[in-house]
Order: sequence, then C-alpha cells, then structure tokens
Amino acid sequence: MHTTEEHTLEEQMIRFRRDLHMYPETGFLEMRTASIVAHELTKLGYSLQLGIDVMDPNACMGKPSNEETEAHYAWAIENGAHPDFVEHFKDGYTGIVATLDTGKKGPTLAYRFDMDALDIHECAEDAHVPVQKGFRSTLDNKMHACGHDAHTSIGLTVAKVLMEQKDELCGTIKLIFQPAEEGTRGAKSMTEKGVVDDVDIFIASHIGTGVPFGHFVAANNGFLATTKLNVTYKGTAAHAGSSPEEGKNALLAAANAAINLYAIPRHSDGATRMNVGELHAGAGRNIIADTATMTIETRGETSEINTFVRSQAEAVIQGAATMYNVDYEIETVGDALSSQCSPALAEKMYHIASDTGEMEHCEKEDNASAGSEDATYFMERVKERGGQATYVIFGTELAAGHHNEKFDIDERSLLPAVNVLVESAITLSNQ
Amino acid sequence: MHTTEEHTLEEQMIRFRRDLHMYPETGFLEMRTASIVAHELTKLGYSLQLGIDVMDPNACMGKPSNEETEAHYAWAIENGAHPDFVEHFKDGYTGIVATLDTGKKGPTLAYRFDMDALDIHECAEDAHVPVQKGFRSTLDNKMHACGHDAHTSIGLTVAKVLMEQKDELCGTIKLIFQPAEEGTRGAKSMTEKGVVDDVDIFIASHIGTGVPFGHFVAANNGFLATTKLNVTYKGTAAHAGSSPEEGKNALLAAANAAINLYAIPRHSDGATRMNVGELHAGAGRNIIADTATMTIETRGETSEINTFVRSQAEAVIQGAATMYNVDYEIETVGDALSSQCSPALAEKMYHIASDTGEMEHCEKEDNASAGSEDATYFMERVKERGGQATYVIFGTELAAGHHNEKFDIDERSLLPAVNVLVESAITLSNQ
Amino acid sequence: MHTTEEHTLEEQMIRFRRDLHMYPETGFLEMRTASIVAHELTKLGYSLQLGIDVMDPNACMGKPSNEETEAHYAWAIENGAHPDFVEHFKDGYTGIVATLDTGKKGPTLAYRFDMDALDIHECAEDAHVPVQKGFRSTLDNKMHACGHDAHTSIGLTVAKVLMEQKDELCGTIKLIFQPAEEGTRGAKSMTEKGVVDDVDIFIASHIGTGVPFGHFVAANNGFLATTKLNVTYKGTAAHAGSSPEEGKNALLAAANAAINLYAIPRHSDGATRMNVGELHAGAGRNIIADTATMTIETRGETSEINTFVRSQAEAVIQGAATMYNVDYEIETVGDALSSQCSPALAEKMYHIASDTGEMEHCEKEDNASAGSEDATYFMERVKERGGQATYVIFGTELAAGHHNEKFDIDERSLLPAVNVLVESAITLSNQ
Amino acid sequence: MHTTEEHTLEEQMIRFRRDLHMYPETGFLEMRTASIVAHELTKLGYSLQLGIDVMDPNACMGKPSNEETEAHYAWAIENGAHPDFVEHFKDGYTGIVATLDTGKKGPTLAYRFDMDALDIHECAEDAHVPVQKGFRSTLDNKMHACGHDAHTSIGLTVAKVLMEQKDELCGTIKLIFQPAEEGTRGAKSMTEKGVVDDVDIFIASHIGTGVPFGHFVAANNGFLATTKLNVTYKGTAAHAGSSPEEGKNALLAAANAAINLYAIPRHSDGATRMNVGELHAGAGRNIIADTATMTIETRGETSEINTFVRSQAEAVIQGAATMYNVDYEIETVGDALSSQCSPALAEKMYHIASDTGEMEHCEKEDNASAGSEDATYFMERVKERGGQATYVIFGTELAAGHHNEKFDIDERSLLPAVNVLVESAITLSNQ
Repeated sequence: MHTTEEHTLEEQMIRFRRDLHMYPETGFLEMRTASIVAHELTKLGYSLQLGIDVMDPNACMGKPSNEETEAHYAWAIENGAHPDFVEHFKDGYTGIVATLDTGKKGPTLAYRFDMDALDIHECAEDAHVPVQKGFRSTLDNKMHACGHDAHTSIGLTVAKVLMEQKDELCGTIKLIFQPAEEGTRGAKSMTEKGVVDDVDIFIASHIGTGVPFGHFVAANNGFLATTKLNVTYKGTAAHAGSSPEEGKNALLAAANAAINLYAIPRHSDGATRMNVGELHAGAGRNIIADTATMTIETRGETSEINTFVRSQAEAVIQGAATMYNVDYEIETVGDALSSQCSPALAEKMYHIASDTGEMEHCEKEDNASAGSEDATYFMERVKERGGQATYVIFGTELAAGHHNEKFDIDERSLLPAVNVLVESAITLSNQ
Repeated sequence: MHTTEEHTLEEQMIRFRRDLHMYPETGFLEMRTASIVAHELTKLGYSLQLGIDVMDPNACMGKPSNEETEAHYAWAIENGAHPDFVEHFKDGYTGIVATLDTGKKGPTLAYRFDMDALDIHECAEDAHVPVQKGFRSTLDNKMHACGHDAHTSIGLTVAKVLMEQKDELCGTIKLIFQPAEEGTRGAKSMTEKGVVDDVDIFIASHIGTGVPFGHFVAANNGFLATTKLNVTYKGTAAHAGSSPEEGKNALLAAANAAINLYAIPRHSDGATRMNVGELHAGAGRNIIADTATMTIETRGETSEINTFVRSQAEAVIQGAATMYNVDYEIETVGDALSSQCSPALAEKMYHIASDTGEMEHCEKEDNASAGSEDATYFMERVKERGGQATYVIFGTELAAGHHNEKFDIDERSLLPAVNVLVESAITLSNQ
Repeated sequence: MHTTEEHTLEEQMIRFRRDLHMYPETGFLEMRTASIVAHELTKLGYSLQLGIDVMDPNACMGKPSNEETEAHYAWAIENGAHPDFVEHFKDGYTGIVATLDTGKKGPTLAYRFDMDALDIHECAEDAHVPVQKGFRSTLDNKMHACGHDAHTSIGLTVAKVLMEQKDELCGTIKLIFQPAEEGTRGAKSMTEKGVVDDVDIFIASHIGTGVPFGHFVAANNGFLATTKLNVTYKGTAAHAGSSPEEGKNALLAAANAAINLYAIPRHSDGATRMNVGELHAGAGRNIIADTATMTIETRGETSEINTFVRSQAEAVIQGAATMYNVDYEIETVGDALSSQCSPALAEKMYHIASDTGEMEHCEKEDNASAGSEDATYFMERVKERGGQATYVIFGTELAAGHHNEKFDIDERSLLPAVNVLVESAITLSNQ
Repeated sequence: MHTTEEHTLEEQMIRFRRDLHMYPETGFLEMRTASIVAHELTKLGYSLQLGIDVMDPNACMGKPSNEETEAHYAWAIENGAHPDFVEHFKDGYTGIVATLDTGKKGPTLAYRFDMDALDIHECAEDAHVPVQKGFRSTLDNKMHACGHDAHTSIGLTVAKVLMEQKDELCGTIKLIFQPAEEGTRGAKSMTEKGVVDDVDIFIASHIGTGVPFGHFVAANNGFLATTKLNVTYKGTAAHAGSSPEEGKNALLAAANAAINLYAIPRHSDGATRMNVGELHAGAGRNIIADTATMTIETRGETSEINTFVRSQAEAVIQGAATMYNVDYEIETVGDALSSQCSPALAEKMYHIASDTGEMEHCEKEDNASAGSEDATYFMERVKERGGQATYVIFGTELAAGHHNEKFDIDERSLLPAVNVLVESAITLSNQ
C-alpha cells in the first residue's frame, strides 16, 4: 500500500509523462523536453551541466540539418519550452548531467535516462489510451512509442526523491539525461565528453521490452552491437539512348553494394545482421542514374563482430563504387556496442529490487538477443575504467510492441521503478 | 518574300503556339489543347472524330490515374479549355482526327501532329525568350520542351490553308492530332483503333532534332524501337534485427534485376539499349524492404531486336522475383517501333520541298540513330496495308536541346513547314 | 598398468588400424575394409547383415559412378579384400550390422563406427609418423585423415572383447559399421533401412576433434545440420562475337546464384552457414558458356534452420536459371541433422567412463559448434522411437587437424576407448 | 587452263599444305612449321630474319609456359623440324621475315601469312576429307581448322614464283610469316619490332570466311577490335563451417566481376561485345574459395570502342577485388585493332584480281562485322606511317565453318590465290 505522499508523487510523474507524450521530440531536437527537465532539476537543487558541456559535437551521429534544428527551435519556443534554459539547447545539443554531491565520502553513481521520441504517427483510434485520456501526440509523425517519455519522468522523479533523502546518500549521484537513443546516436557523444569517466557504478534502465508487468531484470545482456550507415553514390548522368557510354551509373553501384552487403560472411563467434533498408536511385527513366542513396544497418553479437561486419561493408561499398567509376560517401549515423553487465552489480540490484517488495518477480539476467542500445557506450567506458555497470528492465504491460503506433505502457509501472532506483542509490552509495 | 496574308497567318500561328506554350499539358491530359484544336477545326469545316472514337483505351500506355485526370480536367476548365469540346476529352482520351473529303477521286493522305508537353520546369532566366516575350509556362514542372506546341500550331495552320485551297486537292485528307507522344504512349491506341487503316500516304513531321534552320530531311530513318516498363516487386517486411528470416526482400530482387538487365546480351543484328532509370525500395533502415519499383527502358535498332531485349528483360525480372520469393508486376507504359520511310515517298517529298523554295537545303534521308518516336506505329500500319509513309524534319535553330529547360525554337521555321506540308498535300493528292 | 593380454590386444588393434591406413577407401567404396571387417566379425561369432540388407539405395547420397565403383572393386580384389565377403559390397553398398543376441532379456544397444577415408594426398615427409613407421597410404590422393581407420579398429576390438565377455551382457548388442560418413552421405541410408528402429540405446563415438589426450566427452551436442548440394546449369553455347543473342549463359546464372546464396537471410533462431565451394563454367574464351556447376554446402544450428537455408537456396538457384533461360538440376549429395544427446544417457556415460579409470578427465557435455555428423540420423531416429542416444569423444593428441595431410593420432588412445565402450555395454545392458 | 608447270606447282603446294595439316602447331610453338618454311625460303634465295630479330618479346601475348615450349621443341625435333633452323625458334619466337631486294627502285611491299593451328580435336569420320586422303592431324586436340596451313603454303608458293619472276619486280618484297594469329597474339610483337615500318604497301589475306569459291574480296573492313584478358583472383581459404569470417572469397569476386562485365554500357558509336567464356573457382565444397580465374574477351566496332570496354572492364575487375579484399591480376593474352582498308589500294587489288581471270567474281569491299584479326596491327602501323594496307579474301567452299572439327577447304582455291598475289606484287611494285 502506498502512502498519500506517494500518490501525489505518482500523479505528478504521470502528469509529466503525459505532457512529454503530447510534445514528442526526436533525437537532438529534445529542446522543449530538456529545457523543462533542466528547469525542474535546478529547482530541486542539482548542479547542472548542459549541451556541449556534456556532449562532444564530433561524436554526435545522424544529427538533423541546421535548417531542421532551427525550425524545431521555433516550434519549441511556441510549445512550452522553458525560456530560461531553451537557449542552451538551440543548436541541438540537448544532453543534461545533473549532479548531487553529498559531501560525504563514497562512490560516484550514475543513472541514465533517455528522452527522445520516434518518427511514427500515433494511432488515433478511440481504443488507444492516449486518445481516450487526451494526451495523444500533438504532432503528425512524431510519437513517444518506446517509453522514453516514461524514462524522463522516472528520471525527474528519482531526482526529486533522492534530493529529499539526500541525508541517506553518500558520495556523488549523477543523473544523465541523454538525447537521441533512437538510432543509437547520442550516448557516444556524452561518453566521449567524459561524463562517466569518474563513475564507479552506472545503471541504465528501460521499461517494457517484453518483460511482464511487475517483473524486474537485473542484468540485460543481449544487446547487439550495431552501426547505422548512410551511403551516397555520385556518378554522371547521361542520356541512356543516345550516349550510354557517357554515364557513370550510381544505381548499379548501389545495387551491387546492396546484394554483396547481405553476402558478407557469417561469423563463427556469434550472430550478425545486415540490412539495406532503403535504396533510392535515379531521376528519370531514360537517364543513367547519377545518384543513389542507401540506409544500412549492421549488427553483431559482440562489438568485435559488428566491427568485422562494418569493415567488410566498407570494402563492399568501396568496391561497388570502383566498379562503376562513381564517388561514394559513408556517413555513420548511429553506433552502439555490445556489453555484458557487471555480475556483482547485477547480483546487488537483484537483491535490492527483491528487497523493496515493489516487484512481483525478479530475474538476475536475461541473455536473449534484444535489439541494440547505446547505453552500452557508457557501460563499456565505466567498466574500462574499473567501475561496474548494469542495464535493468522494469516490466510493464504494453498495448502494442515498441515502435508500434499503438504502443502504450501501464503507468502503474512508473512509481515502483522510481522506488527501486532510489533504493539502489541509497544502498550502493553506502557500500 | 512573303505576302501580307502570309504575315497574318504567321502571326496567328505564332500567337497560337505561344498560347499552347503557356498552358502545357502532358500526355493524355491535353484537354485544353484538344478542345481548342477541335473548336478551330470545326469552325474551318472539318468533320471530326474525337476521344475514344479514335483511340483504343486498351492500347493506351502510361495513362495518368483517374485522380490526376479529374484534377486536370478542373484545371483545364479554369484555364481556357473550350466548353463545347472539353467534355469529349475529360477522361483523358484526347486524340482528334479531322477529315476533309474533297469529293474527288484520289488517295487518302494523313498528317500526324503531336500535342503533349513534358514534366520539366521551364527556365525562368531573362535570357530565355519565352520569359522575355511573356509566354513562359504558367505551370511549375510542365513545359513544351520538345516543340509539340509548334507542331500543333503547324497542324492547325495546315488545316486552315488546305481548307482554303480545297479546290486544288483530290481524295481525302486526314489530320491526326495525337496525344502522349512523349514516352511513346499515344500512337499505338490510335493505330489500334484503325485511324490510318484507310491511309495511302502518311506523313509525320518534327521540328528541330539537330537539323539546322532552313534545312529539310525527307526521310528520317534512325528511330530505335523502344519499350518503357514499370516494375514493382512486393515482398514481406520484417524486423532486420529480430527476425530477418521472416522477410521477403523486394530491394534485393530489384537490385538483382537491375544489374542483370544491363547484362542482357548484345545483339549481332544491331544496337540495343537498356536503362533502369530509377529504383526505389524500402521504408526504413531496420526493416526488410517489402516493396521496390523500377522504371525501365529498352531500345533496339529494329523492332525485332527490341522485342528480344524486352523478352530477356522479362525473364530477368521474373527470375529475380523467384530468387527472393517476392511477387512482381510488369506494366508497359510506352512502346514504339523502328520504321524505315518509304523510299519513293521520301524521294517525292525531297522534290516537293526543294521545289517550294522555302528551304535552304534539302536532304533525302538521315539514317543516324535518333531517339524513338511512336509515329512509327502509324507508319508500320500504313506500310503493312500497302501504303507509303515517311517522317520529315524541319530544321530550326534551338536555344537548347530537346527536353532541356532552355529549349526554344526559332518561330520563323513555322510558316515554311506549313507551306511544304500544304504543297505535299496538293501534289500527292493529285498523283 | 595394462595386462599382457591387453598388450596383445592393443598390438592387434594398432596393426589393424595401420593396415586400414595403408589402404584407405572413400565413401561407398569401402569394399576391402568391409570385407575384412565382415570376415573378422563372422569369425568372432556375430550374425551379420550386409550391403543392401542394411542400406536403402534410394537414400544413399553422393555415391560414386558405376564406373568408379567397378574400377575400385577390381582394385580391392587385388589389394587384399577378403574373397568370401567382397562380393556383397561390389556395388558400393558397404554397410555392416553385426548382432550379438545374448538370449537374455535386456535392452538393445547399438554402437556406430565409420570406415571411410578422404580424397587427400598424405604427407610424405619423414617427420610424419606413418612415413616413419611404414604405414603411409599406398594411394595417391586417398588418406585416412579423420581417424576412421582407428574407429573401425576400435569397433572390431570392441566386438572381440564383448564376445569374450558375452556372459556379462544382457539383451542385444548391434555393431554398426557405416560407410560414407565424410560428406554426411551414408548414415541416412542405414537409418532409412531401419537398422536402429529396435535400438534402445545408441552410442556413436569419435576420436580427437580437439579434445586432449586422455579426456572424454560424454555428450557432444554442437553438430550443425547440413546439406550438400551439387548444382548444374545447362544453357546454350553461341559465338560471343558473332551471335551473342543466341547464347543462354549458364555462367551468368551460376554467378548470380553464387552471390545470392551468400545473401540468404541470417536466422534469429541460430547460426547459419552457406558456402559455394566450387564453381566451374564455360569451355572457351569466345563461347557463351553453356554449362556451369557448383558444389554447395548449407548448415544450420538446428535441422529447422538448415531446412530454411536449403529452401531459400533452392529459390535462388531456380531464380538464377529463370533469369538466363537455362535449365538447372539440384542433386543432394549429403545431409546431416542437428541432434541433442539424451541427458540421462550422457550422465551415465560420464560416470561409466569416470569409473573405468581409463580417462584422465571426463566432461559431461560440449555444446560448442563442431562441424557436422550424420550419426545424427541414427540419434534422431532412436530418440523419435523412445530410445536414448549420445555421441562421445575420446580425446587424443593430433599431429595436425582433421582433414590435414599431416593428420595422425596417438595410438595409445585406442585401447582406453575400447575399454570404456565395452564397460558401457556391460553396464547399460544390465540396467 | 593451267599449264603443266602450274599443275606441278599446285601439287607441291597441296602436298606442303597437307604436311602442315598433319603436324599442326599452335601459337608461339610453330617450330616445325617455321623451320621448314625458313629452309625453303633460304633455298629460294631470300634473305631471312628470324625469331626475336622480328619479334618484340615484351609484346608477345598469351605465350605458352617455358615447360610447354620446351616439351614442344622436343616434339618438333622428333617430327621433322628442319635441324638447320629449328634452334632459332626453340624459345617460341617463331616469326620469319623473308626479303627480296630487287635492286631496282620501287616501293616496299609486304605480304602477311599466318602459320598457327588450333586446340581442336580433328574429326575422325570417314566422310572428313583429311581422313579419306590420309592427312588428318597426327595430334589429339590440335588441328589446322582455320586454314593457316593453306596460308603458309600459299606464302611459300608466292615466294617461289616471285623469285622466279624477280626480273619483273621492282623495289623490295617482304614476306611475313606470322605466329599466333589465333587469339590475336602474334602480330603485335612483329609490329612493335618494326617489321613493317618501311613498308609502303601491305597485303594480308585469308581463305574462306564464308566467301564462296572463286570469289575475291579486295577490302575486308569489318574486323572488330578485340582484347583477350585472363583474370586471376587470389583470396584466402578458410573452413566454411568453422571460420567463415577468415576467408577472402575469390569465387564471389569473380562472380561479381562476371555479371558486371556484361553490364558494361553499350556505346553509341558502334557495336561492343563482352564475354566471360570460362570461370573456374574453388577447391572444395566446404572451403571458402581462395582462387578464381576467368577468360575474357572484349570487342568493339572500332579500336576506340574496344578501349572503352577494356577500360570499363578493368574497373569492374578491380572493384570486385576490393569488395572481397582479394588480390587480382589482369593479363592481356591477345589484342587486335579495327582497321579500314586503304580505298585506293583496295581499288587496285580489285582490278588486279579481276584482270587475272583467276576469280569468278570480285567484290570491292565487305563491311560486315567479321570476327577479329591481328593483321590489323600491321595495317594500322603501315597507314600511320603513310603507307597503304588492305586485307583480301579468297573464297573457297568449306566443309564446315572455321574452328569446327570438320573444317576443310577446297584445295583448288590455293593456286588462284597465289596467282593473284603474285600479280599484285608485279603490278604494285612497278607503280
């Protein structure tokens, strides 16, 4: 049974989650979201680092164009971005690190929350809860269909409770609000800037992912390393009837690349994936195509395997260009690692979660392959520097799968997640 | 030196050509153009057959969708289509055959004029004559960039002069105003409807094509047979990371088809051409692509060679579908034949043109490869039934090549073309 | 310490193994080997079923041609095949099942031993032990490079000892001498003939495979299911210069098939493999190639996955034929399943082996991927019918890896293997 | 009617042709042939240059290996090579230039005769005339199936008659006996050595080629330029099951190259040809193929077009290697140019042949595409340096087409060819 205070807290966090749901912002455009988060964290008493102070611009991947960024800035201003903070994020560097230094000796703990939405058009049917309850996305083709609205709300609520219970904490607590997890584009820039270089214990969390309501997973290990590539071929147009020999055929380069990308060898150390999701080439039936673009995704059961696939992919892409005398460009627009959770930390999280009594069922680990996540960048960095890291899952009932237009969570999962995370901070900072 | 009457005539035909230039209509949408042409021909006293009376709907290729046709009809109504005739063309069957029966014994002569424009955005620079003189296209991305505005104007002027000189004519004169020559889509439907089945002498004409101002070619022989195909592959989408084995990859089918289409054997009987001008596939980086489309063009030095290439192409397209368990559809959206001009008729046209004194220089024939033309459908039908056919060129100075945004003709070429065609009618109908 | 009797036994089995090593016979040609084995088993008192009585001809895969079979028969006659038995094997059906019916109630146990050699030219260097000791292969390009000579010798020695200890046994013992394990070609035909349909406990064994000398593995689980395919394309030759259009290009069909075979989707349920090991096409530089052949191998972590890959491969092979209007043929020349050892039987074998004191170290199971084996056919059949099956490994020190020209085993591994297998028969037949 | 002397001459030349037919020698191995030719020419009084004195070793293409050359030398010694001359040719440089300097002022004329046979197994049926008359090839898989035995005999007979009629000649006569015309491998080395650099009038000749018996063509213009390439890819072998990622797949590189070679653009200036006649890759079903070889042939209606195709081919071959990280090598094993005969010389040859009364019918020129010939190297060099060149055809009735196992000529065509060539020497050297 929850206390009245908790009821109020739950209502607040649900209200906040629904507000974010109505104003979804995709990667590197989380200006409204971040400005509100920054405002709230400041009110709570955290010291903040914002934008390029916590992000390496050179390590941002798949960042929208300046035009799109500027246009979104205008939208954010008009749609409730907090005026005191939105300027910090206007160039699309929307990360935040909030620090609580207890003044007491102890470890540095970090929690990661991601904030971005997806380019999905939210379901408008009456049966869809956000429609019923009036918090459906206000934007066409933008939707929080992965639960990052919930993550941000959990993060802010954790921030609030931890500040209230500051006396029970030791060491330092860092709350990381990350942009652009979708497409695995944002974590690398915060990692490269060093925001977890001083972290002893790192905990990322996700809601849902197929884990049932009330269940908790202390170590989610199955993330595939991945790389997202955009490839462009540039050739020379020519009239296909009158001077075919003058063309340099970008369409044929892309077609060859596509087929041979799938033909990259399997790897004896583990699973690989390859996809050319989109191929667009040419401008007219009777013109030799002078441009072609492809969106590509590689995956590997380990970072090493993914690096192998990527390296082979680069050779294939280059070779196809050579075949047809066309130029090519490969842009990395996303990247994530594989990562194994630290067993000792996972063991502790299992017991902490079990002991809270908030979860119906706790699992120590889940090793099944489960998509990709760029929190792995933080995890690997922390482990490289001698710390421990884990990735926990808070189960919930989903209306439909992640990235589906009917995706929705059970909001009763939010408060227990806050309580487990808060308890972990208290327990782990005192060890 | 031209007479005052001729000056007036020239002014009229230039005015008419410029009006058409301002209101360009692409294939099977020539509603405004055709309605005005029909109105004028009726005024002149021709008996007319319109729309589906001169076109076989089943032989129309690459016809726009009903939606586009209806939308254009509304535009035509608002932009000067003649109300008495536009109804005949509202479904996009925009052909016209105007007949002058002299009542005297004699051959049936037919002249073909094409009316359609292109999906090109006309140059807006001051140096472009249509800008200077105020008759640039009123529509974005539509332009008379091949001279069919001039052809229509020549056709109407020939109609006028022939009616004035009716007493000098024998037999029957048919003036064919053809839609959708671009993409070689319209002639087949008129041929299949039988509009030249009774024709003894057929003459198609074109302005420009690289022939200098004042020059005349009595037999243009080099047209390549061609076929335009649209190909669609339909597969099954699947998440590329979590269930790649469930996808049926339309992108890979298309990529394989594209490469192997170019690899179709050369032919020892003459030149071939193959182009996959456009390939579009897929809907997201991490989704197995379930659709792919290609626009394709085959050509052959003869109709037989083109048929060979097309037949090979169909096998390639089908085989690529089989490889990836995807469905496919091939739509023929354009078709033209090769055709050799009748030598005896060409010889006569050479002398007729020479004798008019209108042309600086006359050539008997030009056999160089020169794109494709679906007037070849009329020509082959006439020859099959024992008649004679030729394709003549009236040279002009071009501001830029055909299908270029800066294309423009020298309007002083119009009246001589009328005079040569009128003279040919008088001479040939009396033989 | 071994007894004198054991020393004699060891000497006999080494002598027998070396004789087989000198006269290696590849799959479905083990006429000399089988005739000697049959003779010895008969002398020992086993009742025998031979050749087509234990093999389904329709389920033999990759069997040599009649010419090759006849030629080898002549060779076998000249090189020591036993005249009383070689006739049974002259058509290349070289399997043997030897049965010992104890007359006592009890289970039916079966042991599988494979007999075939490889198309490898044995190393002739002095450092190679078979050279030093004078038992190098007498044949060019034939070699026992996988240890099946040792397996056959172990099998015959097990037969001898079991007959000597017949009184300690219950139920029925079947010793299966299998042809053509290499290429996974022979087990299916014996399984289809029903030779293990009455078996309660099935044990296959292998020497080496990377397991150290003195080590024992009670359950080797990692076999990949596999299929071996030979593909032939037949097109039409034509002179490439004078009539390229008359050719139907088998080389291009094969090239397309090869690339797209590698591009078959990865599978989310487990590992896949694809290899086009050989491609041969064409008969002259200036001739369109009218024939092409490929040798192909698919693998899957489970039989279901391998079936998926095979099914996709068939579509690719067919589609490539369609593309180029050529005929094709797919011949299955090898096939093996995946199989999990029965845990209870494996547990028993672990204890039996441990208890013998013959092995330095015993492992319960090894789940790493480890090539393919068609003993899996027997295993799956036995399990389907309610029995138990396992696949055990006797480690040995290898001079070089399996299928290497310098492959050799440590012969001190032979006798312990016999002792463990004999002990398993005594123990398991009495349970 | 021919004189007795001519009858004797004809018998001699037929006897000589038949001897060559029985002892066919392929390109760069014409040691027996050349040694006999050199001996006869020496006897006649010609001054000779032999072997590397008339061939640039660096410009020899597709020369057999040293081993093959040495083995053939031994064969030649045993089979009638002339001991006084065979040493000159033992390294496979088998060209001869015989010079007759009349001592009188006048032009330098050159006649080219080719000497090599083909790797074809001659028909052994009774209906085949060489079988009937006892002069079938003594060698398996070697055959004069293109008529070069006749050419060599014509050349030697021309030499004899010219020497007899020396007084009627002016200037200098050079008789060029060329090796390795098949595969267009030998002419370049003689051209590069400069053997026609001083030539004013050059005449190559061929028998047959589809021209009827008794017909003469004064200018054969339709030769396609061609290049013969051997391509080798070298990758890295790996076990396809256990370590596919370690392989570098030469088979896939070759397969990609093959398909894309055919996809090289058509050329608007004239015909192209591309053929990958043979592709051989890999050494075992379960091994990633580490080697692949292809034999390739390009052709173009002009040398420029062929150069375009070759250049594109090199890019394709290189790109395919890059795709799969394999090494590649391109060896040029044959090369010929296109060439237009000098019209004035052709006109003269037409009249000379007509005037002899030896031919039933004479044609001035034949422009149809007709394979490739490396005499074009000589022709282009002569024309570049201001001389005139032509390529004449002496028609004959063929038992079967060139390069067919049943190929045979009508020997009655030989003497008229000699007479026309002799007459041309007399006439042209006096102009």
